[in-house]
Amino acid sequence: MKAEIISVGEELLSGDTINTNASYISKKLYDTGIKTSYHTTIGDNLDDIVEATQRGMNRSDLLVFTGGLGPTRDDLTKEGVCHSLGLELFLREDILSRIKERFNMRDLKMTDNNIKQAYMPKDGIELVNNYGTAPGLALKIGDRNILLLPGPPREMNPMLEAYISTHLNNGSESRIISRAIKTIGIGESVLETKIEDIIENHKDFTIATYAGSGQVKIKISYVSQNPDKGEELINNVINEIESRLAEYIYSFKDESLEEVVYKLLLDRKMTIGFCESCTGGLISSRFTGISGISAVFDRGIVTYSNEAKEEELKVNPDTIMKYGAVSEETALEMATGLLKREGIDIAVSVTGIAGPTGGTKGKPVGLVYIGLATKEHCDVLKCNFTGDRKTIQNRTANTTFDLVRKYLIDQK
Amino acid sequence: MKAEIISVGEELLSGDTINTNASYISKKLYDTGIKTSYHTTIGDNLDDIVEATQRGMNRSDLLVFTGGLGPTRDDLTKEGVCHSLGLELFLREDILSRIKERFNMRDLKMTDNNIKQAYMPKDGIELVNNYGTAPGLALKIGDRNILLLPGPPREMNPMLEAYISTHLNNGSESRIISRAIKTIGIGESVLETKIEDIIENHKDFTIATYAGSGQVKIKISYVSQNPDKGEELINNVINEIESRLAEYIYSFKDESLEEVVYKLLLDRKMTIGFCESCTGGLISSRFTGISGISAVFDRGIVTYSNEAKEEELKVNPDTIMKYGAVSEETALEMATGLLKREGIDIAVSVTGIAGPTGGTKGKPVGLVYIGLATKEHCDVLKCNFTGDRKTIQNRTANTTFDLVRKYLIDQK
Repeated sequence: MKAEIISVGEELLSGDTINTNASYISKKLYDTGIKTSYHTTIGDNLDDIVEATQRGMNRSDLLVFTGGLGPTRDDLTKEGVCHSLGLELFLREDILSRIKERFNMRDLKMTDNNIKQAYMPKDGIELVNNYGTAPGLALKIGDRNILLLPGPPREMNPMLEAYISTHLNNGSESRIISRAIKTIGIGESVLETKIEDIIENHKDFTIATYAGSGQVKIKISYVSQNPDKGEELINNVINEIESRLAEYIYSFKDESLEEVVYKLLLDRKMTIGFCESCTGGLISSRFTGISGISAVFDRGIVTYSNEAKEEELKVNPDTIMKYGAVSEETALEMATGLLKREGIDIAVSVTGIAGPTGGTKGKPVGLVYIGLATKEHCDVLKCNFTGDRKTIQNRTANTTFDLVRKYLIDQK
Repeated sequence: MKAEIISVGEELLSGDTINTNASYISKKLYDTGIKTSYHTTIGDNLDDIVEATQRGMNRSDLLVFTGGLGPTRDDLTKEGVCHSLGLELFLREDILSRIKERFNMRDLKMTDNNIKQAYMPKDGIELVNNYGTAPGLALKIGDRNILLLPGPPREMNPMLEAYISTHLNNGSESRIISRAIKTIGIGESVLETKIEDIIENHKDFTIATYAGSGQVKIKISYVSQNPDKGEELINNVINEIESRLAEYIYSFKDESLEEVVYKLLLDRKMTIGFCESCTGGLISSRFTGISGISAVFDRGIVTYSNEAKEEELKVNPDTIMKYGAVSEETALEMATGLLKREGIDIAVSVTGIAGPTGGTKGKPVGLVYIGLATKEHCDVLKCNFTGDRKTIQNRTANTTFDLVRKYLIDQK
């Protein structure tokens, strides 16, 4: 089954909105064994919607539209698709009353432009929207499946999942088995050279590498008729890759670095705290993006100014004066200060220059020190990152989590 | 001039990578007066690249490819485009030595797979890559412009900007003038109803609304031959919209909420601090994403546990016992505690249940209290958000910045 994702919306073509839906849908379909062959994005324009529908009907088995189902005048997807397929739209009173109810629940009056969301073609299956007013729509035309989903991710995501589990998860014999290996600390071209012969010797597998934020992800996929046999084959390939790259691998499960750190901390029954300067709370924020994190993390401090470092972490003012706020010495005192102040097992500090301003010849933008202190151990890592402010902050967070991960692995 | 962005990469079709490049390029082109009509994403596959090149040559004036220029075997964009256009590739020694130099600089040995990046067609213009090994390529075939850019954003972005400023910013008479109005606190359909007649009465303008994270952005665009006249006309429309929506508008400049808060604080010469529970550092992190923030912000605290709230902010343990950590009373004591502890003008606290676990009937997931304390003023806002953990955290951050913004506006 070949899928095509068609995203509708001027905000995507003008660059105002990043198209996260296309990748989300592709990922979900992929996990079900359906490969996406094309992403197409068009504007809020009837002709383009009609044309994209026709092209999609000619080349793909499953067409997934997102966006353009809402109440406003530029929401035209349902109208365009149904027009292209020669389907008439009728008012569905049950849907209309559900939309009215949503407004009542929130003490709002329904405006008239919402009514058009309650129109459906005759054999269309309504996909209930629990997070917004616009219902989705599923159509079957011959052996083609057509799916119309709303644009906002929090409305679209649960609707897609419900559709997949009730309509797609049956029948298909062959399945895509895929696994991911995540690495940090090695460049993409060197990595590929190290596993070139493995890729060459397993032509029936898709082995691809993706680089980003100082990490490389290796994705290994295999189309199998027999899931058990497929698992065994893919495990063999993974073992081969592991034997070449063990020191760089941090996950075999497509986890984020912070998830790996969280699990290691849980396993070792250890707690952690962060004091951040140039990352300004990003590390704590990424860490607390994990539900249940309170078992290993109870607080963090953003010490942006020198005074904050001195007052909160008891960094010696002379240290800052002599070596600067961005220095090995300050990073060390920040980490040990945080450790003393709190009843935690691991204290991590970050100080650096995220830019774009603030760099000097001796201390350029991208210079970052990461400190790690425990009762027995104390160390500072010096890094030189390149890129804009956001990139430097993200790389600092990644490297910090990796430093903690390596420390925790040694604590087994 | 009609542009089309063609993104190449299996990682986009499998959903492993979100396509941020397409929107970035579209935005940059839009600012230059070039509208994007299509985004297309295809896999690392010669046939698909050839076909997309041909379709693009038939329907668009400017084709921008991204991705597939790197050293690995699945990087095929240059090969596919040149094959499709009948152009042969030749080794360029100057490019090869520049790539070698990059490896030397970083004390690394160049692997042989990097050599293919130094091949170029005869009349192709090399676009220098200052952030990676793969050079870009610009071609002119008849009146069509074709641009090949690398996939990683930090390599692609500066290369695109350099190309635009040297190759595109000349000639074209008509320009797109566009402005954005950003609102918070009003739903998209109600907002559209309020300005429906303005949209109707200005058919020569494109007035579109985009909703996300509790905010609605109104984008107003106009194609003008005369920039001064165009500015005047667009200002009239903006004034009309403002007269209907003033209370919800927070920016006329496409700024983020945190940028608006930062500027207001600078203007009022006030400082701010945050203590966060359920957002875990997200608010501080978003705030410190702004360069120069140290003028108004010197520290933040993530008090995730009850103990952290008691120890760091002197919240009375009885208050937490009696009303719970997620309560108006705790939010109030957190904010006043932070204010007392630090020499700041505004202290903001956040406590809530981000989920997915931890909710009860009386205190469901999404319940959040935001406290704001100054020497003269003290208040708590109760919110009920819906959505997943990330959505609730983002909405909390947005609402927090908006609360501070409203407070600051009253301080004029």
